[in-house]
Amino acid sequence: MEGPIAAVSLDEKLETIREYWSPGIIGALNGQHVKLAKFKGEFCWHEHADQDEMFLVLKGSIRIRLLDADLHLREGQMAIIPRGTLHMPMAAEEACVLLLEPEGTVNTGGERNPLTRQPGWI
Amino acid sequence: MEGPIAAVSLDEKLETIREYWSPGIIGALNGQHVKLAKFKGEFCWHEHADQDEMFLVLKGSIRIRLLDADLHLREGQMAIIPRGTLHMPMAAEEACVLLLEPEGTVNTGGERNPLTRQPGWI
Repeated sequence: MEGPIAAVSLDEKLETIREYWSPGIIGALNGQHVKLAKFKGEFCWHEHADQDEMFLVLKGSIRIRLLDADLHLREGQMAIIPRGTLHMPMAAEEACVLLLEPEGTVNTGGERNPLTRQPGWI
Repeated sequence: MEGPIAAVSLDEKLETIREYWSPGIIGALNGQHVKLAKFKGEFCWHEHADQDEMFLVLKGSIRIRLLDADLHLREGQMAIIPRGTLHMPMAAEEACVLLLEPEGTVNTGGERNPLTRQPGWI
């Protein structure tokens, strides 16, 4: 936990996000971080060796490419990508996504590339 | 994780919930459970000794009474109640809430009373 117990408005936090594919932290509990991100275009193939990752679409729709399938998520849908699963998130149009994953999770997983961001609190 | 990687529609899961204050599990990751619940009326004062708990309001609005404050959460707002914090959720009208907490968390915390439910998958 950071700070006092308080209401956090997802819309207000989303307004502060200027960069696609750069998650910002909005909550911490039980060793996990709740994050918000805006997706647009294609991310990169990556996996998180030891972290399951949840994607909940708040606005728009996204696609998560897997090696053997495509996952289409529209507003109000979520999915959990288990640790060790190669995946590539995509969004044809801007989409807003709530992420849940362990503290310390890096957006590009085991890869370090130009898309890598160290998430900060927003 | 339970089952294959799949899209989970919050609305479809919410439609299956018939009882207020009885969370149903819709996802598992990193030792945590993602749950959905419908709130209406007053719950009971309780605390979770070792579990932080997140409330994200999907529909309607809720109030979480704390010993020294009241937290009002409307649709699109969330709050995290740290472990060991006495709280009592309320909702004047039916509200739909996404909860996140460690696996094994019981809705009434350390109390066992007529409101206690063992959550199952929905």
